[in-house]
Amino acid sequence: MEQQQVLIKIVLDNWYGTVARTNKLLGELTDAEIEGEVSADRNSGKYLLGHLAAVHDRMMPLLGFGEQAYAHYNDVFLTSPDRSGKEMPSVAELRASWNDANAKLDAHFKTLSAADWFQRHTSVSEEDFAKEPHRNKLGVVVSRTNHLAGHLGQMVFLKKK
Amino acid sequence: MEQQQVLIKIVLDNWYGTVARTNKLLGELTDAEIEGEVSADRNSGKYLLGHLAAVHDRMMPLLGFGEQAYAHYNDVFLTSPDRSGKEMPSVAELRASWNDANAKLDAHFKTLSAADWFQRHTSVSEEDFAKEPHRNKLGVVVSRTNHLAGHLGQMVFLKKK
Repeated sequence: MEQQQVLIKIVLDNWYGTVARTNKLLGELTDAEIEGEVSADRNSGKYLLGHLAAVHDRMMPLLGFGEQAYAHYNDVFLTSPDRSGKEMPSVAELRASWNDANAKLDAHFKTLSAADWFQRHTSVSEEDFAKEPHRNKLGVVVSRTNHLAGHLGQMVFLKKK
Repeated sequence: MEQQQVLIKIVLDNWYGTVARTNKLLGELTDAEIEGEVSADRNSGKYLLGHLAAVHDRMMPLLGFGEQAYAHYNDVFLTSPDRSGKEMPSVAELRASWNDANAKLDAHFKTLSAADWFQRHTSVSEEDFAKEPHRNKLGVVVSRTNHLAGHLGQMVFLKKK
């Protein structure tokens, strides 16, 4: 295996592994547990699930794969905090959007060649990318995996002991 | 920049960035806040700090850099849960060990060439590594960054709102 393919595999394994650990947890949580707070006076699991769905959905345009499917989540889950008074979809709906966003990313990931992963993401200009070649598609996956890991660490507290 | 160096930079930037975010939080937390629980009836910040120091200290032998400096932490923070009754060092001591472990790793990271990062880590055999070349030193950094991100996501709750 080429060294760059080895590295791409490491990064993608970490992405898929973190998504899988999140899905295992979500499978163990009831909708009522997801409505709960992760710690006293902190975000609800419901808000975090919507937030994660929105962030992953936004990876679609960022990676040049297509439009956001859940752009209406941005206002509720990205630019507003929890308990903003803005209406949230049901937990069932959020579960479905989360799975859908990840499935779409997965379908696109599978089509990318090693060279494609080294292409710039859409929020960096060609000019800046020439100077900062690490602002590529694989870098987006690295940073979003880290983001997911942080919130997954919080969501484990939703589970009743 | 060679593609593999770009990828190494992405992985190391994510490591250093996550350690820096942790240190920023630790700098804002009082020792008393670190003694608190991250969520009701969950780990104390003190246990998590010791756990993280132990995990990072163990990266030294895993990456072939040298011996563990805090091997006596393993029993308290790796193989025992919080509130095991085993005596913990003070928060001040844990802060120092955490910083020391990261500084040592940093000093070694800086000496590694791109080729070195593709070498196997010490808990995979040469035979297995031949079949699974992703079990390399960079992969250890990816997985430990993910581990840290998860606990950092929890430790933010130690901060009084």
